[in-house]
Amino acid sequence: MKFAKVTIVMGSQSDWATMQEAIKPLEALGVEYVAGVVSAHRTPQRLVEFATRAHEEGTEVIIAGAGGAAHLPGMIAAETHLPVVAVPVASRHLKGMDSLLSIVQMPRGVAVCTQAIGEAGAYNAGLMAAQMLAMKDEALRERLIAFRKKQTDGVAFELVTD
Amino acid sequence: MKFAKVTIVMGSQSDWATMQEAIKPLEALGVEYVAGVVSAHRTPQRLVEFATRAHEEGTEVIIAGAGGAAHLPGMIAAETHLPVVAVPVASRHLKGMDSLLSIVQMPRGVAVCTQAIGEAGAYNAGLMAAQMLAMKDEALRERLIAFRKKQTDGVAFELVTD
Amino acid sequence: MKFAKVTIVMGSQSDWATMQEAIKPLEALGVEYVAGVVSAHRTPQRLVEFATRAHEEGTEVIIAGAGGAAHLPGMIAAETHLPVVAVPVASRHLKGMDSLLSIVQMPRGVAVCTQAIGEAGAYNAGLMAAQMLAMKDEALRERLIAFRKKQTDGVAFELVTD
Amino acid sequence: MKFAKVTIVMGSQSDWATMQEAIKPLEALGVEYVAGVVSAHRTPQRLVEFATRAHEEGTEVIIAGAGGAAHLPGMIAAETHLPVVAVPVASRHLKGMDSLLSIVQMPRGVAVCTQAIGEAGAYNAGLMAAQMLAMKDEALRERLIAFRKKQTDGVAFELVTD
Amino acid sequence: MKFAKVTIVMGSQSDWATMQEAIKPLEALGVEYVAGVVSAHRTPQRLVEFATRAHEEGTEVIIAGAGGAAHLPGMIAAETHLPVVAVPVASRHLKGMDSLLSIVQMPRGVAVCTQAIGEAGAYNAGLMAAQMLAMKDEALRERLIAFRKKQTDGVAFELVTD
Amino acid sequence: MKFAKVTIVMGSQSDWATMQEAIKPLEALGVEYVAGVVSAHRTPQRLVEFATRAHEEGTEVIIAGAGGAAHLPGMIAAETHLPVVAVPVASRHLKGMDSLLSIVQMPRGVAVCTQAIGEAGAYNAGLMAAQMLAMKDEALRERLIAFRKKQTDGVAFELVTD
Amino acid sequence: MKFAKVTIVMGSQSDWATMQEAIKPLEALGVEYVAGVVSAHRTPQRLVEFATRAHEEGTEVIIAGAGGAAHLPGMIAAETHLPVVAVPVASRHLKGMDSLLSIVQMPRGVAVCTQAIGEAGAYNAGLMAAQMLAMKDEALRERLIAFRKKQTDGVAFELVTD
Amino acid sequence: MKFAKVTIVMGSQSDWATMQEAIKPLEALGVEYVAGVVSAHRTPQRLVEFATRAHEEGTEVIIAGAGGAAHLPGMIAAETHLPVVAVPVASRHLKGMDSLLSIVQMPRGVAVCTQAIGEAGAYNAGLMAAQMLAMKDEALRERLIAFRKKQTDGVAFELVTD
Repeated sequence: MKFAKVTIVMGSQSDWATMQEAIKPLEALGVEYVAGVVSAHRTPQRLVEFATRAHEEGTEVIIAGAGGAAHLPGMIAAETHLPVVAVPVASRHLKGMDSLLSIVQMPRGVAVCTQAIGEAGAYNAGLMAAQMLAMKDEALRERLIAFRKKQTDGVAFELVTD
Repeated sequence: MKFAKVTIVMGSQSDWATMQEAIKPLEALGVEYVAGVVSAHRTPQRLVEFATRAHEEGTEVIIAGAGGAAHLPGMIAAETHLPVVAVPVASRHLKGMDSLLSIVQMPRGVAVCTQAIGEAGAYNAGLMAAQMLAMKDEALRERLIAFRKKQTDGVAFELVTD
Repeated sequence: MKFAKVTIVMGSQSDWATMQEAIKPLEALGVEYVAGVVSAHRTPQRLVEFATRAHEEGTEVIIAGAGGAAHLPGMIAAETHLPVVAVPVASRHLKGMDSLLSIVQMPRGVAVCTQAIGEAGAYNAGLMAAQMLAMKDEALRERLIAFRKKQTDGVAFELVTD
Repeated sequence: MKFAKVTIVMGSQSDWATMQEAIKPLEALGVEYVAGVVSAHRTPQRLVEFATRAHEEGTEVIIAGAGGAAHLPGMIAAETHLPVVAVPVASRHLKGMDSLLSIVQMPRGVAVCTQAIGEAGAYNAGLMAAQMLAMKDEALRERLIAFRKKQTDGVAFELVTD
Repeated sequence: MKFAKVTIVMGSQSDWATMQEAIKPLEALGVEYVAGVVSAHRTPQRLVEFATRAHEEGTEVIIAGAGGAAHLPGMIAAETHLPVVAVPVASRHLKGMDSLLSIVQMPRGVAVCTQAIGEAGAYNAGLMAAQMLAMKDEALRERLIAFRKKQTDGVAFELVTD
Repeated sequence: MKFAKVTIVMGSQSDWATMQEAIKPLEALGVEYVAGVVSAHRTPQRLVEFATRAHEEGTEVIIAGAGGAAHLPGMIAAETHLPVVAVPVASRHLKGMDSLLSIVQMPRGVAVCTQAIGEAGAYNAGLMAAQMLAMKDEALRERLIAFRKKQTDGVAFELVTD
Repeated sequence: MKFAKVTIVMGSQSDWATMQEAIKPLEALGVEYVAGVVSAHRTPQRLVEFATRAHEEGTEVIIAGAGGAAHLPGMIAAETHLPVVAVPVASRHLKGMDSLLSIVQMPRGVAVCTQAIGEAGAYNAGLMAAQMLAMKDEALRERLIAFRKKQTDGVAFELVTD
Repeated sequence: MKFAKVTIVMGSQSDWATMQEAIKPLEALGVEYVAGVVSAHRTPQRLVEFATRAHEEGTEVIIAGAGGAAHLPGMIAAETHLPVVAVPVASRHLKGMDSLLSIVQMPRGVAVCTQAIGEAGAYNAGLMAAQMLAMKDEALRERLIAFRKKQTDGVAFELVTD
């Protein structure tokens, strides 16, 4: 198990196709991260160990992605006070509606920060982790503001139609 | 924490209004049970302790009910080889569709036995626990067959319309 | 019609593509099984014969998979006291949401053990059948525990990214 | 068990609150009917007996209503060549969406005539049964045409707002 | 416009890929039919003309298929006392859930006989039309019973796995 | 049948509880209107007559509300080139999801202007009718702009908490 | 930024594949239009500028398409009294159900004219814009009536089956 | 307009019934907050002013709640780099499913932190805001850990059944 300021975990190796989007904004913004697999169902002890050690190991924000009966983000949140940014990975049959509801409908007292289903949500998870870190890192905040401005500037009104 | 042959757990005290239906068939069939609260999110360590101790404490079937982002049944199943019969408790806004999908869409390798949303599902969870125990308890099997026969006989064709 | 300790039935030949996942854990755990087609709608008499004879023919757990208006698991459960593990096969247009609701929303008094939609659910049906049999078969229980442990050990934290 | 030209069955006594709407058009149109309870899950043998005897007992159209995992209409249709008009009774938690999908998504080869969820669907089931009988009963057809005309005439453009 | 004992109409030419399934049971059972396009939205006058003339032109059962905001079956039913068997054609984005709800949720007083979404529903529409005609055609009833028996006999228990 | 610049029609008398919201913005903005019942299913000829006469009778915008299998707005749109503003009235069991999909999923070539489910949608239908009329009525446009400004000014930041 | 009588905007370049359908009826009917990208989330200031300037720049109807959490149409409508015709672009995972609900469920006081999900909705948005303009442009109204008549005439009853 | 370290905004006065749950954990944890109404649709300029000024006014986390076509959280997020914690307020007809999808399905590049539908989500929004602030406030972190521990300790295993 490895830890970084932003630690990304996901329920299975196959979620990486989606979750790798999370590292794009982190890299663009110069935020340290690491990623690995923690399965709520197949490795519940690793989940507990990961969640309870994350803060002391230097992690400040956790990103967790899972699909189907997606218990990973909520169960990590149950074991730590760190913010958990959650990504509903699209499932094969129900297209992530199951993942979304499993993640977002958390009961009173244990919260996660749910993003959109799939790749866009994974990308935004990385971005949101940076936004949280920027609360206490002015240099990162400047980079974030510039990143957002560049994003805005990159949207041309003109349609490139072929 | 207490254990019986059938141990019923639920995510919060308020789930008892639904989950108490489970004890009706257990009592009718003479199956020993106990019930208590284990919250996946608020008491994750109790969940681990409960699930890992259940078999050695004499529990043979676990019934677990929860609502919303209902992680309890799946997380218990992750920590034990005992069959877990799961009840999606109806949630306030989404009426249990969130509970159902959070419970039933388990990934390959960790299974639960999902019942219907709400009271009927809780009742059937008790019945299914008895059906499992009847696999090795011939006297219970006889009672179960009689119980089912009585249920059949109780359905009159005639409508009592007032 | 054939019977084994675990008898797997499905609504049509085409469900086999999904349902064959069920035999993987059964084979891995050394549990005897047989599989065949019983259509609730096209062969209702076979369904009755199958369900009423299963126990006396030595079946201890039934696995039943069907899609769409999936009546097979519930109708088998109506005719036997054996546990029925049910698999909602993904349907063409509604992706198994119809199969799931048709199977899981059983009324009070007749229960089935619903698994996830599709292949993962079929696999877990086999696993759950073994978990039930392990309630009275200590050797199987040992194999099951080892199987689960191996499954846990097989989840590496490291992502293989190419 | 009783039979009439139109025989109405429903999964439980409690469905009668919905299903009694079906008799309104039958009475208005002078069509003979009888109603009773046949539970697919609690009385599967009664279901088989009912469905296989209905034609020889003089029934020409069957109306079947059920809620939740509503297997009654489809299982009757599996045992008879008579037209089965099906009513999805509204369920407690999912409001009849489960009933509807369980009934309407029948596989190729066994058909039912699904109506709307709830009371309107029950009423229309009675009406549709009459429409089918009118195919060979000219007097009934005349009454049906008059009934429909009266219905049309009863819709005033003016709003009665208090 | 053409009419036959069973007249099949659909909302657009592209629905024919689905609706042609309806003719299989009609041909197998020797029932006369014809098929054409009537668009509720693009040809509303043709709809009225079709629906009001159908009975006098010798049509006894109408089959109507449409997708999306599928108004065709209900609007035909509004203009005739003949039974209308309705097929929700799968739509591009919502997979026929829109088609199904647009068709099945008819108000009190005007009924249609809704079938399953897509090809299976179209096939069953043909079958149901034959079942209705068999109410007054004993020879057809015999063919129908034989057709159903053959269907049952065609379901082997054995899986052909390669 | 009556006509005004904005003519409001609805599928049944009971829809008036919802649809009367539409007259609030029309009255506030001084737009002439009239309202009545036109049932697509119970009075299809009235629908045709209404839709084909509306333009020549001086109607410039039609507002149409209906619930369930809500065919009224689309069928009116099929018979006129006038803009039809459509309101999905909330249905009893499916809460207007059926009404919404029945209305909004119109096929290529015949369009309606769908509003939100229920009262808010009815209110906005009146507002949108005024917005359309304001395209050629400068005085109305001024009143509309003032109406919108007043609406904005009426939203205090401060919460009145008791 | 450019403006025309009908100005079409969309949330991203990729929506053009859908939104270009809108120009077909506009071109067929000789209505001037222009199209460009305005992202509610990435270019919120452009949105405000666009919406507040549209009327004075000569735009009479705005067509706005977006997918997912589709805020563009509603936010434009919040800043202008011009009619906004809205197109829910199909999203990757939820197939436009998210886009539809995000667009159509507008609160009391700010209305949009929602069309169907995807290409058909985009086409109809163009058509509806023309219908609105025809309220004050008699020549356009004549072209519109002819266009609709041609559309009707183009629907043959005969199926071309190969 | 007022600002605090945590500024809570909502789309209308009526959302306060839900959103006031957010202040419970903030008060329990000693976090400064203020709450007010900002309507995306009725007060779009206030939204822009609020979002663009929030950081310089000392706000570190924004909580935004809205229902139906809930554009408020996403539109605020579009105008600021501060983390926005979003609450889908339950809507009248669709029970918050529209609110949830309108909020959570944000596109790549602008993120919000979505909580559960309704009161539980509002409560968790307050808690999550505190978790974010605790990233740089050690005393708050200690209070948060104690708060969570107290929450855990408050869950008795015993059911109080009356």
